[in-house]
Amino acid sequence: MLYFNSDYTAGAHPEVLERLVATNLEHTVGYGNDAYSERARELIRTATEQREAQVMFLVGGTQTNATAIDGILRRHEGVLAAESGHIAVHESGAIEASGHKVLTLPHRDGKVSATDVERYIKEFYADDTYPHMVAPGMLYISQPTEYGTIYSHSELESLGRVCHENAIPLYIDGARLGYALMSEGADFTLQDVARIADVFYIGGTKMGALFGEALVVRNKELLNNLFPLVKQHGALLAKGRLLGLQFEALFSNDLYERIGRHAVTMAVRIREIFRSAGYEVVSESPTNQQFFRLPNSVIDRLHEFVSFDYWGARGEECSVVRFVTSWATTEESVEQLADIVASITK
Amino acid sequence: MLYFNSDYTAGAHPEVLERLVATNLEHTVGYGNDAYSERARELIRTATEQREAQVMFLVGGTQTNATAIDGILRRHEGVLAAESGHIAVHESGAIEASGHKVLTLPHRDGKVSATDVERYIKEFYADDTYPHMVAPGMLYISQPTEYGTIYSHSELESLGRVCHENAIPLYIDGARLGYALMSEGADFTLQDVARIADVFYIGGTKMGALFGEALVVRNKELLNNLFPLVKQHGALLAKGRLLGLQFEALFSNDLYERIGRHAVTMAVRIREIFRSAGYEVVSESPTNQQFFRLPNSVIDRLHEFVSFDYWGARGEECSVVRFVTSWATTEESVEQLADIVASITK
Amino acid sequence: MLYFNSDYTAGAHPEVLERLVATNLEHTVGYGNDAYSERARELIRTATEQREAQVMFLVGGTQTNATAIDGILRRHEGVLAAESGHIAVHESGAIEASGHKVLTLPHRDGKVSATDVERYIKEFYADDTYPHMVAPGMLYISQPTEYGTIYSHSELESLGRVCHENAIPLYIDGARLGYALMSEGADFTLQDVARIADVFYIGGTKMGALFGEALVVRNKELLNNLFPLVKQHGALLAKGRLLGLQFEALFSNDLYERIGRHAVTMAVRIREIFRSAGYEVVSESPTNQQFFRLPNSVIDRLHEFVSFDYWGARGEECSVVRFVTSWATTEESVEQLADIVASITK
Amino acid sequence: MLYFNSDYTAGAHPEVLERLVATNLEHTVGYGNDAYSERARELIRTATEQREAQVMFLVGGTQTNATAIDGILRRHEGVLAAESGHIAVHESGAIEASGHKVLTLPHRDGKVSATDVERYIKEFYADDTYPHMVAPGMLYISQPTEYGTIYSHSELESLGRVCHENAIPLYIDGARLGYALMSEGADFTLQDVARIADVFYIGGTKMGALFGEALVVRNKELLNNLFPLVKQHGALLAKGRLLGLQFEALFSNDLYERIGRHAVTMAVRIREIFRSAGYEVVSESPTNQQFFRLPNSVIDRLHEFVSFDYWGARGEECSVVRFVTSWATTEESVEQLADIVASITK
Repeated sequence: MLYFNSDYTAGAHPEVLERLVATNLEHTVGYGNDAYSERARELIRTATEQREAQVMFLVGGTQTNATAIDGILRRHEGVLAAESGHIAVHESGAIEASGHKVLTLPHRDGKVSATDVERYIKEFYADDTYPHMVAPGMLYISQPTEYGTIYSHSELESLGRVCHENAIPLYIDGARLGYALMSEGADFTLQDVARIADVFYIGGTKMGALFGEALVVRNKELLNNLFPLVKQHGALLAKGRLLGLQFEALFSNDLYERIGRHAVTMAVRIREIFRSAGYEVVSESPTNQQFFRLPNSVIDRLHEFVSFDYWGARGEECSVVRFVTSWATTEESVEQLADIVASITK
Repeated sequence: MLYFNSDYTAGAHPEVLERLVATNLEHTVGYGNDAYSERARELIRTATEQREAQVMFLVGGTQTNATAIDGILRRHEGVLAAESGHIAVHESGAIEASGHKVLTLPHRDGKVSATDVERYIKEFYADDTYPHMVAPGMLYISQPTEYGTIYSHSELESLGRVCHENAIPLYIDGARLGYALMSEGADFTLQDVARIADVFYIGGTKMGALFGEALVVRNKELLNNLFPLVKQHGALLAKGRLLGLQFEALFSNDLYERIGRHAVTMAVRIREIFRSAGYEVVSESPTNQQFFRLPNSVIDRLHEFVSFDYWGARGEECSVVRFVTSWATTEESVEQLADIVASITK
Repeated sequence: MLYFNSDYTAGAHPEVLERLVATNLEHTVGYGNDAYSERARELIRTATEQREAQVMFLVGGTQTNATAIDGILRRHEGVLAAESGHIAVHESGAIEASGHKVLTLPHRDGKVSATDVERYIKEFYADDTYPHMVAPGMLYISQPTEYGTIYSHSELESLGRVCHENAIPLYIDGARLGYALMSEGADFTLQDVARIADVFYIGGTKMGALFGEALVVRNKELLNNLFPLVKQHGALLAKGRLLGLQFEALFSNDLYERIGRHAVTMAVRIREIFRSAGYEVVSESPTNQQFFRLPNSVIDRLHEFVSFDYWGARGEECSVVRFVTSWATTEESVEQLADIVASITK
Repeated sequence: MLYFNSDYTAGAHPEVLERLVATNLEHTVGYGNDAYSERARELIRTATEQREAQVMFLVGGTQTNATAIDGILRRHEGVLAAESGHIAVHESGAIEASGHKVLTLPHRDGKVSATDVERYIKEFYADDTYPHMVAPGMLYISQPTEYGTIYSHSELESLGRVCHENAIPLYIDGARLGYALMSEGADFTLQDVARIADVFYIGGTKMGALFGEALVVRNKELLNNLFPLVKQHGALLAKGRLLGLQFEALFSNDLYERIGRHAVTMAVRIREIFRSAGYEVVSESPTNQQFFRLPNSVIDRLHEFVSFDYWGARGEECSVVRFVTSWATTEESVEQLADIVASITK
């Protein structure tokens, strides 16, 4: 069976795992106060060119979003996000569970526009009843988005400017950030992201770690009591060095870039396979997630050999499916997929 | 100045106030355990033909919604509501503040359809990722809606049936319920509402009381620890008899119906005034709220003599405005409005 | 039957009620934006000598505490309070429901000491594990306390100094503040309270209003988005002028002082009645609540003619009971009580 | 340097790590729906003799407690726990953050008594004002406790009986459960714990896993929507198989018992070292945590060679310290400690 369900079906990249194995018997203090974690924080400060940033490692994406957003927002505020945003759809109401409304914006292929953000804020305050409504207290975007699409450098700058002008922080969910940085035609760098966002996180779970996300707080006054907040959210790992070790590995020897580049290359190849076989490519994704509309009959036959998921509900005749690549996607598996698609299609 | 801003610009209906004054010096136990409150509960059980219902008096609408919804939902569930629903728009995130997501449905003039409710639930469970999403745990509707429109008897029955079949409770926000019951062409009764809804409330604040809402819990297992929940939500009035006394007055001598009927009659007359003057009536409201699209110049001239509010933001040339009537709207004031409109329009 | 159960068994002081009746038919804007509310705010700013204070009217005490504390605390912080404090015991977990821990301190007759507050903070930060614990983010005290006792001027100053030095706000629950101000031997004024507390509230419900509490925010940066927060907590009254009118009455013609003085005089007389009859006075209360330890047989005989409550559970042979006075306690009723006690005791 | 700070200073037991390494390149579905997780659940159902139990793996202890307690309690309820309980002290208010009060009971060496639990409940309902207070909705105990002590079989049965009779669930925090099961003179088994508790968790983090806790829900109606609740609490691991693999290892070849037994043996030896050197043993702990009162001068000299923590704040002359063992504590390190203590003491 070939696996293209997601970027978290395998364990850790061998270079990451090796660090965990090599240090397993060492004793260190807990909760991220160890030397490995500090070294990883330094590597991230260097890579992002944010020497003063606060860096904190958490275990997973939903808890990172919930913790950061809960810490940034004031009680009467909500978070602006695309209707398709992960926090709006796929986190079982974690944001609301901490008391905050997700204020949704229309999206195009998963992206919100600076124009829409600005309009929302303007119209909000133009309505006399606004004190009875939830004030937009920050903006959440994901880069890449849940549709695999990316915000260009200028789009990021526009969003940053609108947020800045309206005095609301910009938070970027970087669960798959490395795939955006290494995407086809990416015109922005990690440093750009770090400079534009007030707070963002660099995903590990979907980028070769067993688990782990690195929250980077450039605008420190937004989250100046992060440690107890992380603990309160159940997001503090006792053996915190495990997070430090993994990010140390990811930010050494260009591993983070190498993982991103490899997965994107594999994804582009998969897109070619389906496109050249005549199937519709849904969402112009330049990253490691690719979406195709396939006849159900094709899906059923593919499923005999290939594991992948529906994107939404199964349709009457055709359905949208998602193929995802990662460090664990081999060239062999992609070429086998090519053969299978060819044999089904011919 | 004539006032048509809302149904809470004046104090209480004289028959309500009279009860408060007459009993002011009496001593009773607090928190609604007094005889007046018990009598009011009995009057409501009789009027609704729900002899076994639990009736609880709270002070205001937002707190009633927040308390009831918080008590009905389980932690992982959210509440379905129209995008235009009061809980979705105008309660400063009170539902989210107690940890629950408002799951929005499209609306037509403030109303949701049974078809849309059913589709939402079906599509929700058809999506494999549903355990990562917020489950629809109840349905909230307002009768009349925020647009002044009403659900017909058959629409209520359809919603009740969909809720019942999908095992989610139906909750009706009756902040202005009396205006729906007395609306033009209403084909349902208070007993119908009480039988179809699992839980609903009979609004007092906007129906002639100084304040107060009567929460009626037919399906008692949904809210079987209501007292501490109300207290926890800060919604328990120390001098609880004030609520009992007011609802006793409202449900004596047909006062609740009389108030509803009078306000609707006044509203219908106002609609005639604007329609016959050639202005667009927005939203087909048969209740005490009427919406018109007026040229800004007309609005500005009217505002010299008449107090009323915009409905949304002021437009470029025209804006939508809202006129609201209540027990305190006199025939004289409406005829004066007619004169003013006529003089402006001619 | 004579009533000494509480200070909320009767309606409103006649001078308060008269204001509501006199203005009942007027139309005003809602939510406290009316002229009466503004005048009441001005009267309170004047009376407290806090010209710049933000004043907001809420309906009840629990909701006022929950709203203010929720607004003042940051997410990872808790509120210090006496073990016997109202928020720690009798608010059905309203503080926790908004996400915050009540950090309890030992008390003496309902009072906490500045020494204990300081020690708590010092020991908290001396413990290496403190980032895993809930940080003390503010201090809550009630004046008078739940035991009817009062903090002296110097005790208030000491608490204020400890709070200030440790950079945590001091919040005073003044549900019965007027009875403290008018208590036997009170050596502090309303202006002192207003100057020492960062935020406090002047109780109306238990001081002659039908309902209502006036939240006074001297340190405005602590609660700079109070309106939506109040709304979110379900604590915003639609007909907000009702609150303004009542506080206007309370702060006119010395009514607030007169009510306090009368109730305290009555309470002192009740204490004399029981003390001279040989019963134990529990808690040295100089305010409108008095506590006695009585034989159960005496309690049972008194209950034939007098309504009053146990303070805690009924004991084996003796029990502690509470007698409370208010504006509605007449001299006649107190002298009747004297006769009844005398006849039972002889 | 010798390390006795805690049972989470090293990585994973080699047999656990080996499983992660051996399976690293495999692809499986996420979120615990994989075959390894299912096998681990079966092993736990067998080991606990609870064939119908629901077993769910979470990452850490605080999030497991917060999730389970949040799911079990109704909105108006709180959780009873020892004043010294982890949820009451060391979880940064995570229970309160989800809206619930921790109702504290006195403790003796970290343990609550069935008598105190029963008294609390009885006195609670004997107080007329109880609907204004937070109802005790469940009991939390930790086995072993935070002081290293254990509840005997009969104590567990008594607590279970009181809970059952009062219809409140019993929840056991088993972060270090294996050390209790293998403690000196333990007279209860894992099956006993599983039978007596309604819900409990088997700790992995402190018992040889990299991370992970196994929540065992015998009384399934208490937590019948656990998956979305876990997700909502940010406690759902994407690569869920990592948890399954670790628990599969722990519950194969008696590893869980072996780890427990080894650590307890090492702890007993450490106690002998300090006791025979004349130092006071604080808390009669038969488990892997040992507490000693040492002169500060001894502590300072020990700290040159040995890493261990204060238990509370440093005292004037003496302080209480904690020594903790685990699978990673070698006999050599303990004998080196013996030599160091001897050399300091002589």
